[in-house]
Amino acid sequence: MPADSTVPVYFDCDTGVDDAVAIALLLASPEINLVGIGCVSGNIDAASAARNTLDLLALAGRTDVPVAIGEHDYLSEPFPGGVPVIHGENGIGGVVLDPSPVGPIDESAAQMLIRLAHENHGRLRVIAVGPLTNLARALRIDPTIAPLVESVTIMGGAALAAGNLSPVAEANIGHDPEAAAIVFSALWPIVLVPLDVTVENVLEEHERQQLVASGRPFPRAIGEILDGYFGFYVRLYGRRSCALHDPLAVAIAVGIITPTVAPAVSVVIDDTHGPGRGQTICDLRGQRQGPVDQPGARCRVVLATDRPLAPVLLERVLSL
Amino acid sequence: MPADSTVPVYFDCDTGVDDAVAIALLLASPEINLVGIGCVSGNIDAASAARNTLDLLALAGRTDVPVAIGEHDYLSEPFPGGVPVIHGENGIGGVVLDPSPVGPIDESAAQMLIRLAHENHGRLRVIAVGPLTNLARALRIDPTIAPLVESVTIMGGAALAAGNLSPVAEANIGHDPEAAAIVFSALWPIVLVPLDVTVENVLEEHERQQLVASGRPFPRAIGEILDGYFGFYVRLYGRRSCALHDPLAVAIAVGIITPTVAPAVSVVIDDTHGPGRGQTICDLRGQRQGPVDQPGARCRVVLATDRPLAPVLLERVLSL
Repeated sequence: MPADSTVPVYFDCDTGVDDAVAIALLLASPEINLVGIGCVSGNIDAASAARNTLDLLALAGRTDVPVAIGEHDYLSEPFPGGVPVIHGENGIGGVVLDPSPVGPIDESAAQMLIRLAHENHGRLRVIAVGPLTNLARALRIDPTIAPLVESVTIMGGAALAAGNLSPVAEANIGHDPEAAAIVFSALWPIVLVPLDVTVENVLEEHERQQLVASGRPFPRAIGEILDGYFGFYVRLYGRRSCALHDPLAVAIAVGIITPTVAPAVSVVIDDTHGPGRGQTICDLRGQRQGPVDQPGARCRVVLATDRPLAPVLLERVLSL
Repeated sequence: MPADSTVPVYFDCDTGVDDAVAIALLLASPEINLVGIGCVSGNIDAASAARNTLDLLALAGRTDVPVAIGEHDYLSEPFPGGVPVIHGENGIGGVVLDPSPVGPIDESAAQMLIRLAHENHGRLRVIAVGPLTNLARALRIDPTIAPLVESVTIMGGAALAAGNLSPVAEANIGHDPEAAAIVFSALWPIVLVPLDVTVENVLEEHERQQLVASGRPFPRAIGEILDGYFGFYVRLYGRRSCALHDPLAVAIAVGIITPTVAPAVSVVIDDTHGPGRGQTICDLRGQRQGPVDQPGARCRVVLATDRPLAPVLLERVLSL
């Protein structure tokens, strides 16, 4: 498929274990053309996330994909450090990859997104699976990008499910609610992929073992990166496994997985400093008899999908 | 059953259509001794709620139950008026009852609750199905009542379900979040009966028709009071019917219905003026493998019950 007939994708991430799996899925998706990756602090600091991303791309032989270091601090708070207990000290489960021969580009993630939005007028598909700081920064610098972007698919939030950062806040949104408020107010169509669906998409230990045993360097690295993450998830699922948070957002944006329940509803970010800080307040009243779009709502909230992600994810990543 | 072996119950309400049904269920429950009813503004103003309550009691031949008028205004805001579109102009669906020969007692609802808590040391069961203004006022006047009360069962809040006053706030809590914050901070055990379970307990039109056709004045009045309310609920359920919000709290407090999933978890009221105002933030993280009580949590959040309320409710109310 020639590159110009595929969908240009800008990917914003904080790599991160499940970000690494999401990158693998992007690289295994001929439907899209990965035109740039911006990194942000979240699971780990933005510079380390970029290094992890570059090293993963090099391992896959994809040093052609430009990577930009984005925002280190959140809009209203300094980055407090990552979550090594989940993602390992280096962000990718302690796995040491060969350093990429290529460095990050000389552009911030916000600048890269702005440039790509203009270069791919009306066609750029944005996928964001970390805090929304880079996207908010880009909107602040150049608000005209919003209508230039085809869609923004966001892994984040908890609609009716419990949060993970707080009882109601999911980490990506909860780490930088001010940025999320800017992103959800912008005039671009959003597909929100919240915990409600990501925690229902689980990769099992026998599937991880297939990656480790594949005999190919890239899938094996992904399997090894997932090892500690699987240990963390025992507390949630009662067994070694993991939620496919970031990969699900990629799968939906690419078209591998189709939402079956995804009403367009008002979504407001709680950016107060009260107990609801960081919540994605999705107005899901009146949905009892089936999904109903609210007039004027620009954000679809994915509440159910057509099939489980794990099998197709495994098949694609094993092909790398 | 002699009165002193039954459980003394103080009922706090804003009668109100479903409050009327809850009162009917209380009067049809020999398990408890209804020692007092306090009224508060919510579905209608507190004085009208007391008049409706007194008239219902008189129709049932229970002029012995004392009724107190409680708080007209919320703790931090004046009462903005009731919701005639749901509860009718007079609060009980426009049905005109014979006026009770008895008036409200010369005590506020808060004073009544304080007195009853002391008189029934360790035994008083409180059921609150309106805004929590009276309970908060009582706690402000006499904080010593909290450990004197056996339990407080509250119809209110939305745990994982959508709200009804806002995307996340249920009306009873959302109308007076400051009062709710006081009530949920007090050192008494709370059973929260949120929309998650109340909207799953539905009375159907053929059941309402049984009340209307019963030939007995009290059940017939309840059936007639429900008429307009059933019309309102068409938008939620797609057919004439209604949620048994307030009656479910009574049924659980009395022991007619038993919660099957009701973890004791941290519950924090959002009393900010942000978009989450009025939300009952229940910490339901970590409940995926089954209900887990959080150490020190004093509030049980009812998420599932053992059987539907409608059949037993109907049987009991038809007996009045």
